[in-house]
Amino acid sequence: MKETVIKENLKIELSDPVLIEGLPGLGLVGKIAVRHLIKQLGAKRFATLYSPHFPYFVLVSKKGAVRLLNGSFYFWKSKNGKNDLMLFTGDNQAQTAEGQYELSDCLLDFAKNHNVRLIITVGGYRMEAKEKPKVIAASTHQEVLDTALKAGALVSSTASPIVGTAGLILGMARFKKIRAMCLLGETRGYLPDPEAAKSVLEVLQTMLKLDVNLAALNEEIGKAEKMVTRLQKIEERRALQAEETRKEEDKKTTYIS
Amino acid sequence: MKETVIKENLKIELSDPVLIEGLPGLGLVGKIAVRHLIKQLGAKRFATLYSPHFPYFVLVSKKGAVRLLNGSFYFWKSKNGKNDLMLFTGDNQAQTAEGQYELSDCLLDFAKNHNVRLIITVGGYRMEAKEKPKVIAASTHQEVLDTALKAGALVSSTASPIVGTAGLILGMARFKKIRAMCLLGETRGYLPDPEAAKSVLEVLQTMLKLDVNLAALNEEIGKAEKMVTRLQKIEERRALQAEETRKEEDKKTTYIS
Amino acid sequence: MKETVIKENLKIELSDPVLIEGLPGLGLVGKIAVRHLIKQLGAKRFATLYSPHFPYFVLVSKKGAVRLLNGSFYFWKSKNGKNDLMLFTGDNQAQTAEGQYELSDCLLDFAKNHNVRLIITVGGYRMEAKEKPKVIAASTHQEVLDTALKAGALVSSTASPIVGTAGLILGMARFKKIRAMCLLGETRGYLPDPEAAKSVLEVLQTMLKLDVNLAALNEEIGKAEKMVTRLQKIEERRALQAEETRKEEDKKTTYIS
Amino acid sequence: MKETVIKENLKIELSDPVLIEGLPGLGLVGKIAVRHLIKQLGAKRFATLYSPHFPYFVLVSKKGAVRLLNGSFYFWKSKNGKNDLMLFTGDNQAQTAEGQYELSDCLLDFAKNHNVRLIITVGGYRMEAKEKPKVIAASTHQEVLDTALKAGALVSSTASPIVGTAGLILGMARFKKIRAMCLLGETRGYLPDPEAAKSVLEVLQTMLKLDVNLAALNEEIGKAEKMVTRLQKIEERRALQAEETRKEEDKKTTYIS
Repeated sequence: MKETVIKENLKIELSDPVLIEGLPGLGLVGKIAVRHLIKQLGAKRFATLYSPHFPYFVLVSKKGAVRLLNGSFYFWKSKNGKNDLMLFTGDNQAQTAEGQYELSDCLLDFAKNHNVRLIITVGGYRMEAKEKPKVIAASTHQEVLDTALKAGALVSSTASPIVGTAGLILGMARFKKIRAMCLLGETRGYLPDPEAAKSVLEVLQTMLKLDVNLAALNEEIGKAEKMVTRLQKIEERRALQAEETRKEEDKKTTYIS
Repeated sequence: MKETVIKENLKIELSDPVLIEGLPGLGLVGKIAVRHLIKQLGAKRFATLYSPHFPYFVLVSKKGAVRLLNGSFYFWKSKNGKNDLMLFTGDNQAQTAEGQYELSDCLLDFAKNHNVRLIITVGGYRMEAKEKPKVIAASTHQEVLDTALKAGALVSSTASPIVGTAGLILGMARFKKIRAMCLLGETRGYLPDPEAAKSVLEVLQTMLKLDVNLAALNEEIGKAEKMVTRLQKIEERRALQAEETRKEEDKKTTYIS
Repeated sequence: MKETVIKENLKIELSDPVLIEGLPGLGLVGKIAVRHLIKQLGAKRFATLYSPHFPYFVLVSKKGAVRLLNGSFYFWKSKNGKNDLMLFTGDNQAQTAEGQYELSDCLLDFAKNHNVRLIITVGGYRMEAKEKPKVIAASTHQEVLDTALKAGALVSSTASPIVGTAGLILGMARFKKIRAMCLLGETRGYLPDPEAAKSVLEVLQTMLKLDVNLAALNEEIGKAEKMVTRLQKIEERRALQAEETRKEEDKKTTYIS
Repeated sequence: MKETVIKENLKIELSDPVLIEGLPGLGLVGKIAVRHLIKQLGAKRFATLYSPHFPYFVLVSKKGAVRLLNGSFYFWKSKNGKNDLMLFTGDNQAQTAEGQYELSDCLLDFAKNHNVRLIITVGGYRMEAKEKPKVIAASTHQEVLDTALKAGALVSSTASPIVGTAGLILGMARFKKIRAMCLLGETRGYLPDPEAAKSVLEVLQTMLKLDVNLAALNEEIGKAEKMVTRLQKIEERRALQAEETRKEEDKKTTYIS
C-alpha cells in the first residue's frame, strides 16, 4: 500500500448527502460525536479507508480476529426527504503532514464522487470550560456559518488554528467546490469528553433537523465526570503528600544544624 | 533503489505452499524460530528482498565480504504431499510507517505470485512469563485460528495490537485474498529468547504436521538462561552497592552536623 | 494534495518582471519587507501556492472563515516602463528538506513561465547589530551583485550559508537560466524586526528605482523597540531577583552552620 | 528538484575508468583523501550531482557567489595506458535512509554509463589508533579484496558495518555488475584526520600504481596534530580546575560544619 485508498463494500445512492467527519483528536470529541450518531441513527457501513500514513500495527479482537487501522464510512437515509447522511470516523489521524494532506484529499474526492455538497467536520478545542461546553464554528461559506450560529454555535474570539483532518478538509474543500464547516466543542482535552460531544451534537441536530436521542450520552458523561473527580482526588492527595514530605525535610534540616 | 524489490535467483514451483514469516522483533522470537526451521529442514534460499526503508549501512563478513541489509526467501519441498513451505526472515524491520506498509505489500504480492494461500507470521509479545512461554494466535479467518487453538495456542485476553510486518501482513492479506495467521510467543523481550521461539515452533509443527527437531534449540535456551542469570546477578550487586553508598553517605551527613 | 501547486486566479501579462520573494524566517525580515512593498505599491494578488509540506492546520479568521496555509503572488505594473514586479510571501517555510527543494523548484518554474529574468529573495541573518542594520548581498551573477553593492549592500565577511527558500532559489536558479540575488538584513532574529526590513527595502528601492514610502515603517519600528526594551527590563528584573535569592540563601546557610 | 540528478558540463571518454568515491564522514577521511588526489593529479571537474536529500541551505563564497550543496565528479587520464580515474566527493551525505539509497543508486547508474568496472569508496572507521593508522578493506569480489591486502590493507577482525554512501555503493554494486571495494582508515573521528587519509592513499596508490605526492599531506597532518595537542591540554586544564574546585568545596563544607 503506497497511498491512502477507500474500498467500497456496498454501492449506494444518496440524496443530497451531507458528510459528517470526526476522527480522534482533543477529548475524542469528534469520534464520540460521530459514533453516537451512527449508533442512534442505525447508520450502515459501506466503505473503508486504509492508509500507509497510519501507525504500523494491527488491532486484535478478543476473539483473535485482526484488522488494519482504518477509517469507516457509514450512510443513513433520511425518512422525510431531507438530506441523507454520510458519516466518517476512524482509529487514527495520519502521522505526517504529507499524510494528513493526502488523506484529506482522498476524503474530498470520495465525497465529491458521492455528490456531497456540504461537509461538516467535528472535534474539540482546548479550553477550561466552567459550565456547559460552548461550540465554536468556522466555515468556507458565510451562509453555512450562519446556520450554525443560528443553531447556537459561536465564532471563536481567539481564532486559533484547526489542526488535522477536521481543519484541512475545510481548507481544501474549495478546490472541489464543496462547502464545508467545522464544529468544535470546548474540552480540557486530556480525557474522552462526551459532554463536549453532546454540545456539538445539539448544534448539529438543530442545523440538520435531525432527531437523535442525545440523552443516551448522559450515562457516558456521568462516567467521565466520575473519572475526572477521581483523578482530581489523586492529584490533591499527591499535593498533600508532597507538602508533608517538605515539612518533614524542613524538620530534619533544623535537626542537623 | 526507490522502492522495495525482490530478486529471485532460482525459479521454483511449489505445491500449495505456506509462507512462514519471522523478522527481528521482541526477543528475536520470529527470527530465531524461522532460522531454526530453515536449518532443520535444510530449506534453500531462492530470493532476496532489498528496501530503501532499511537502515543505510552494509554488513561486512569476517572475510571482508559485503552485503546490503536484506530479507531472504527459502523454500522446502514436502516429502509426503503435504504443503511445501516458503520461509522468510531478514536483518531488519522497515524504519518508517510508509516503509512498513510498502514492505508488507511487496511480501504479499510475492506470496500471491507463488500461489501462497496461507501465511503464518511469527514473533513475540511482551509478558513476564513465569513458566513455559504461552503462544497467542490471531488470524484473518476463524477456521485458520481454530487449527492453531487445537495445536495449543491461545487467544489473547488483552487483545494488544501486533506491531510491524507480522501484524501488517495479516491486516493486508484480505486485499490479496490470502488467509493469514500470527503466532506470538511470550517473552520479556529485551534478550534473544529461544525458549519463546520453541513454544511457537511447537504449535507450528502440530498445525502443519512438520517433523522438526526442536530439542536442537535446547542448547541455545541453556545459553540464554545463563545470560539472564548473569544479568540478574549484576543487577543485584548494583543494588547492593547503591545501598552501601547510601549508608556511607548517611554516616557522613551525621558526622558533618 | 500530493505536491506543491500554484493556482492562478487572474491571468496577467507582465513586462520584464522582477520577482521579489520573502517568506517568514529570522526576525520575519523577508515577510515584513515584502508585505510592506505590497501595501505601499498597492500590488494585487493573482495566484496562490499550496503545499503538503506546510504544517497540517488551517487558519481561522475572527469572522469564522477558514483558509489553508499558503503563499501568495502579487503583481504591480510599473508606470514608467521600468520592470513590473511580482511579489511572493506566505505563512510558512516548507517543513522538510525534500519539501524545501520542491517548493523552490515550483516557484522557479512559475517565475520562468511568467518570463521572470531576475529574482530577489529577502530575509534576515543573525547578528547583534549595534547601529543601523547592515544588508548583506549574495548572487548568482557578479553584475547583479554589483548593483546591490552600489545600492549600499555589503558582501558578507563570514560567508555563512543561506537557509531555506531564500537560499535554495539562488542555488537552483541557474537550472532555469534565471539570475537571482539575496538581500539579508542584520537582525537579532528572535522578534519581528521591521528595522532590518527597512534596511533591506532601502537597498531594494535604490536597485530597482522604486519610489516606496519607507517612513511608513517607522511606527512599526517604534513598537518593536518598545517591545525589546520591555523584554530587556523583564530580563534585568529576573536577574536582580535571582541575585537577591542567592544572597538570602547564603544567609540561611550561614545561619544553619 | 524531486530527486537526485547529475548534470554533466563536459562530455568525456575514459579508458577503463576506476571511480574513487569519498564523501564527508568520520574524520573527513574520505573527503580529504579524494580531494588530495584531485589536487595532486590535476583532475578536472566534468559533472555535478544535486539532491533534495541534502540539507536545505546554500553556501556563499567570500565574494558573494552562491551554490547549492552538491557532489562533484572529476576525471584524470592516465599517461601510460593504465586505468583512467573518475573521482567523486561532495559537501554532504544524504540526510535520510531513502535519500542514501537513492543517491547511491544514482552514482552507480552514472558509473555504469561511463563504463566503470571498479569502484573504490574511501572513508574512516572509529578506532583509537596508537601508531600509524591501519587501513581496513572490504569488497564485493575476493580478487579485488586480494589486491588491497597485497597493498597493505587488512580485513577487519570486528566486521563492523559500513555506514553511508561508502557502504551502500558496495551493497548495490552487484545489481549493476560492477565490482566495488571500500578502504577505511583508522581515525578517532571527531576531527579532520589527514593522517588516516594518507594511510588510505598509500594503499590506493599501490593498488592502482599511481604516482601521487603524499608528502604534501604532511603539513596538514602537522596542523591536525597541533590541534589535537591543544585540545588535550585544554581538557587537562579543565580536569585540573574541576579537581581544585572540588577541594575548595570540601574545605568549605568542613568550615560550615
